[in-house]
Amino acid sequence: MNRATLISEIFRKKTFLCVGLDTELSKIPQHLLSHDDPILAFNRQIIDATRDLCVSYKPNLAFYESLGPDGWHTLAKTVDYIGNQHFIIADAKRGDIGNTSRMYAEAFFSKMNFDAVTVAPYMGEDSVTPFLGFDGKWVILLALTSNKGSADFQRDQLEDSHEQLWEKVLRKAQTWGTPDNLMFVVGATHPEAFIRVREIAPNSFLLVPGVGAQGGDLAAICQHGLTRDCGLLVNASRSILYTSPGEDFAEKARAEAMRVQQEMADLLKTISDK
Amino acid sequence: MNRATLISEIFRKKTFLCVGLDTELSKIPQHLLSHDDPILAFNRQIIDATRDLCVSYKPNLAFYESLGPDGWHTLAKTVDYIGNQHFIIADAKRGDIGNTSRMYAEAFFSKMNFDAVTVAPYMGEDSVTPFLGFDGKWVILLALTSNKGSADFQRDQLEDSHEQLWEKVLRKAQTWGTPDNLMFVVGATHPEAFIRVREIAPNSFLLVPGVGAQGGDLAAICQHGLTRDCGLLVNASRSILYTSPGEDFAEKARAEAMRVQQEMADLLKTISDK
Repeated sequence: MNRATLISEIFRKKTFLCVGLDTELSKIPQHLLSHDDPILAFNRQIIDATRDLCVSYKPNLAFYESLGPDGWHTLAKTVDYIGNQHFIIADAKRGDIGNTSRMYAEAFFSKMNFDAVTVAPYMGEDSVTPFLGFDGKWVILLALTSNKGSADFQRDQLEDSHEQLWEKVLRKAQTWGTPDNLMFVVGATHPEAFIRVREIAPNSFLLVPGVGAQGGDLAAICQHGLTRDCGLLVNASRSILYTSPGEDFAEKARAEAMRVQQEMADLLKTISDK
Repeated sequence: MNRATLISEIFRKKTFLCVGLDTELSKIPQHLLSHDDPILAFNRQIIDATRDLCVSYKPNLAFYESLGPDGWHTLAKTVDYIGNQHFIIADAKRGDIGNTSRMYAEAFFSKMNFDAVTVAPYMGEDSVTPFLGFDGKWVILLALTSNKGSADFQRDQLEDSHEQLWEKVLRKAQTWGTPDNLMFVVGATHPEAFIRVREIAPNSFLLVPGVGAQGGDLAAICQHGLTRDCGLLVNASRSILYTSPGEDFAEKARAEAMRVQQEMADLLKTISDK
């Protein structure tokens, strides 16, 4: 999915919600366990319940890999079930030397129909650029992540360029890709950082994890994060998926997704005031 | 495999070679393509030809993921075929927030029988520690990688601690793990860095990629990298796997592995002189 289509979907549906499919056998309702593929059964109902309320789905690869080889079949079927109307993110945090990153890109963009893959920047330019050569496909590069460990290295001040490591990642990566094929991860748990993010990357889309279970505040990140094109995909996973342990789980997930979507619709209205 | 067993295997077999299984359909001999699973057929012959010459195998996950879901079956069968006498590394470069890293650890250590997984440090402590809680299992953390992009961020000088980013990774991570469950990746393309590596991490094992196809020199890295316990696993992938495009590929792979093993045997002799 290209940038123009993504933006148009956001304003048409009045939402910039990304539903994270961090689906876990031990957390899905008991009655699904009799299915051949309980994870797929759960995902399908969640997808059907939220299609009109989100623009993006983000399967978290770890949850599928932890099922062994069969998990990849479940993942592939989930991606097929989502279809072409949503921006599908492989939350995979990949990145390796060039010939290896090319194989990962092949895995997510050619073998499966993902629109984007999350990539870790530690190995630098030649670990990122192999993902950038696919038409309509995206890299979502980690910049400032939502977790506590983001303080360990990302916040380190660099001697030469007088900026923090995450700021350099944001700045430097824009010489490798463009706002048409490169987004960044900035966690909702750092609302104050969005001012600086928009100074360095005024037009880039940001994938924002950390609202919901991790405690980030949607209005706070929008205050400085929103652009004229919206420029945000805000992810919620556990807070939507696991709202109810019973047979009404999809209905309850829809209610929570709708609550978020309505807040997003109001926030999108503020763009015209900017 | 625990540290004592690994060290004992190194000195018994007189080798610290890790054979990287970066197996690619377009590079294996044509005659294998008629097999049901050509990658597995190739891996089995390479493994049989090198078992006594190496202590470790390192499947590169990207090459299996690029085959789609079936690639994971091939990977699982390859790991089973290797068995319990070698140190098996999942070269996966994973790392995510805590609950997600736990799922990756589950995938590699419980669902499959890997001994170690390579992890990227960018997300910090809580992305690494979930991999450290498995008995006899290891994290191999990226410190200074072999590729050109290692200059982009890893070599940045940090203002507060007056060290480069990769040095901080090496130093800080040792407060999370021990030489019994934590190794580091240091590329053979930076032979001069091994002096500093051994100042910061005198007892840690290092996984060293970049000899062979990437041009690193074995003797140069051993000069400062070797410890009394050896302390090195040196990986070669393409230079061993793809020595011949014909039916003699396994024989030629064995010859190249033996050449490396014999150089290693000589280098191991220098330890007693230290």
